[in-house]
Amino acid sequence: MTYKSERRANWRAAARLRKIARKARSKPSGSLVSPLAPEAFPDLPAISGVRLATGAAGIKYTGRDDVMLAVLDPGSVIAGVFTASATRAAPVLDCEQKLAAPADLKSGAAIFVNAGNANAFTGSAGSGTVQAVTAALSEKLSVPVSRVFTSSTGVIGEPLPSEKIISKIDELAAKAVPAGLADAARAIMTTDTYAKGACAVAQIGGADVKIAGIAKGSGMIAPDMATMLVYIFTDAAIAQPALQSLVSHVNARSFNAITVDGDTSTSDTLLVAATGQAGNPKITDTENADGISFSEALETVMKDLAQQVVRDGEGATKLIEVNVTRADSEADAWLVAKSIANSPLVKTAAAGEDPNWGRVVMAVGKSGAVADRDKLAIRFGDILVAEKGWVAKSYTEEAGAAHMQRAEIKISVDLGLGEGAARMWTCDLTKRYIEINADYRS
Amino acid sequence: MTYKSERRANWRAAARLRKIARKARSKPSGSLVSPLAPEAFPDLPAISGVRLATGAAGIKYTGRDDVMLAVLDPGSVIAGVFTASATRAAPVLDCEQKLAAPADLKSGAAIFVNAGNANAFTGSAGSGTVQAVTAALSEKLSVPVSRVFTSSTGVIGEPLPSEKIISKIDELAAKAVPAGLADAARAIMTTDTYAKGACAVAQIGGADVKIAGIAKGSGMIAPDMATMLVYIFTDAAIAQPALQSLVSHVNARSFNAITVDGDTSTSDTLLVAATGQAGNPKITDTENADGISFSEALETVMKDLAQQVVRDGEGATKLIEVNVTRADSEADAWLVAKSIANSPLVKTAAAGEDPNWGRVVMAVGKSGAVADRDKLAIRFGDILVAEKGWVAKSYTEEAGAAHMQRAEIKISVDLGLGEGAARMWTCDLTKRYIEINADYRS
Repeated sequence: MTYKSERRANWRAAARLRKIARKARSKPSGSLVSPLAPEAFPDLPAISGVRLATGAAGIKYTGRDDVMLAVLDPGSVIAGVFTASATRAAPVLDCEQKLAAPADLKSGAAIFVNAGNANAFTGSAGSGTVQAVTAALSEKLSVPVSRVFTSSTGVIGEPLPSEKIISKIDELAAKAVPAGLADAARAIMTTDTYAKGACAVAQIGGADVKIAGIAKGSGMIAPDMATMLVYIFTDAAIAQPALQSLVSHVNARSFNAITVDGDTSTSDTLLVAATGQAGNPKITDTENADGISFSEALETVMKDLAQQVVRDGEGATKLIEVNVTRADSEADAWLVAKSIANSPLVKTAAAGEDPNWGRVVMAVGKSGAVADRDKLAIRFGDILVAEKGWVAKSYTEEAGAAHMQRAEIKISVDLGLGEGAARMWTCDLTKRYIEINADYRS
Repeated sequence: MTYKSERRANWRAAARLRKIARKARSKPSGSLVSPLAPEAFPDLPAISGVRLATGAAGIKYTGRDDVMLAVLDPGSVIAGVFTASATRAAPVLDCEQKLAAPADLKSGAAIFVNAGNANAFTGSAGSGTVQAVTAALSEKLSVPVSRVFTSSTGVIGEPLPSEKIISKIDELAAKAVPAGLADAARAIMTTDTYAKGACAVAQIGGADVKIAGIAKGSGMIAPDMATMLVYIFTDAAIAQPALQSLVSHVNARSFNAITVDGDTSTSDTLLVAATGQAGNPKITDTENADGISFSEALETVMKDLAQQVVRDGEGATKLIEVNVTRADSEADAWLVAKSIANSPLVKTAAAGEDPNWGRVVMAVGKSGAVADRDKLAIRFGDILVAEKGWVAKSYTEEAGAAHMQRAEIKISVDLGLGEGAARMWTCDLTKRYIEINADYRS
């Protein structure tokens, strides 16, 4: 091919690619449920002291509920973790301030969520909307405004019409009943392909302590319509500092251990409310038997919800668990796990069912963690793939390929150096991810 | 949809997606030239003191040259930069050791490159191959083995057959001539869709100093077949420490300022050889007029080659320049630039020609740099998109969309805080990237 004809071919190729992109954008993205979705939404128990309602405020969607309200009895304590983004949304800033201040437990509390508009990067109008909505909820529910928490998820940079929300408050307050977590899970969805819920029970001092939670998120975490929001309710009696400590601890091993695309939302919010009505002896120590029982049940719920978010990762066809062991330090283990879980080359290899262990070696190498090529061992599932600086003698491509054909893939890296360990979950990177994110908006 | 029928739909969807993936894998990836390729390979001058040859060793490819040899006259000095990967390949470790030791300038030197096999993660056999190849070249060319540098690019984890290479050395040594950089650029290609070359001339002390370079890389930088290799030759008279200092300095603003997928090769190598035959007064000071003239010409060549690598980014249809200004510090500026340039959501928006500035806000927020929402300004090309914490009053979606339809996109972020600035180049993320990386191997 001469350079002249190469040049003509280039322009033709460019024109063709732009035409394909335009055509793809005009197609609706469809309503396929993720192939990794759980079989069914679980039967979530009602939590004493929590009443729920959902409604259709028509903020962006029509023909579906898009707001949810949780009303909490007096005595409830609330803990939370939020996005670390420097451009976090107005409702996130409001929640953070309120959780940092001492709470009046004699009053009730409320959590309100809307889907369809993130109220993020909306200037001073954004915080004005939060003030108007929380004030209206405070008045209607007779709880102090300092105990009203809101989240918004959806498009960035468009004003959130507070009047549409405020006009629904009477209806929601009247409708709120002890059940209804499944409806709430559906009302907060945006690009999610299924509703996400999980529950667990802990035996504490002879009492059954229930924990039930819902989450939304699809893509970890697209800023437009795939913010991650999580609400967990429990009837446990637990001191607020103990609850906050446990939530932060478990969060590191659940929601902070998942990634779909390495992008971070401006709105990520996780709130846990404990109503104290289970009759258990109040948990104040996170490290005694009661604290540990509660922590384990909370971890079950949070890990389950976190993995459900990955299973709904945009375009996902594979759930990938990344296990890193014997790293030089805990921090190094996380560097390696994140490097593998975020690597486009590892994720596309998974999409192609290609046991491409060279890409795992690459991701270990680029992580910044201490690594010794000759001490490294890599496994796909239980199959030893590479060790001592080369492919394992026992390894066959057939065995590796068979593991990669599974819907749930496990990549383990043993660094052979120290005690550091980390476990993360991610999904594969497919053409469907590009379709959703290149072709999507308003 | 009931949960039972949802479940059945999920399994059907999963089966369908796996079938599509299998089908795609069996298709050849085609030989389309990137739509962003330069119009033609430039006319590269011969560099006095450099002789080149290429040959077909049949390591992986057939019907094309896959090895190149550069023979350098006595007096040549060599500088280099290499991948920071902890799992870097045997030839990289060998080059690093040799550059760190004092060189005997009375002897000549050689650079040898093969394509098709990276000789990476090949255990102790890997360094054995490097030793055998460099020893054979040393003997044939009568240069010390400490002055023979090699690079390998291609598949990871497969033994590199040294005898295939060694059997070609006589032919290459006999063929080496002062011209031939274009052939060399073609011989080192793997998944590249076009050969990459660039040149510049600096006037130093009345002499014309020529700089000519070639590069390969497509995907920054896939570890299998898209390692980035760069070889630059100049007839400048320059002291080795000055050359190394300038190469490292310019590298930070050229090859370290590009990204295709954020993945790092185990083999990245950039070598610059200066033969000292231009007749210029020897450059020893990098900061006087001569040093600056040479540095500017070197930067022209390195930036040109670096951008050519991005233009050949796997699946690329857009070249994206990311400009960050007025960051709190230089380090913060790079954090923000990298966060934007590596964001899958920003890159898919570019692929979809979507002026989705909310994703730029997200990428600024997640970068870890100091940012103040209300001081931030975002521009697409010359169009002011957002300022003062909200969309700009003058902004229209039509203007933003028109900019995104260009083949070369410019995203500028003014943080309004300090003096820090950074500029990076990346490409869009398209379905073709997934195709290449999910469907490619063996």
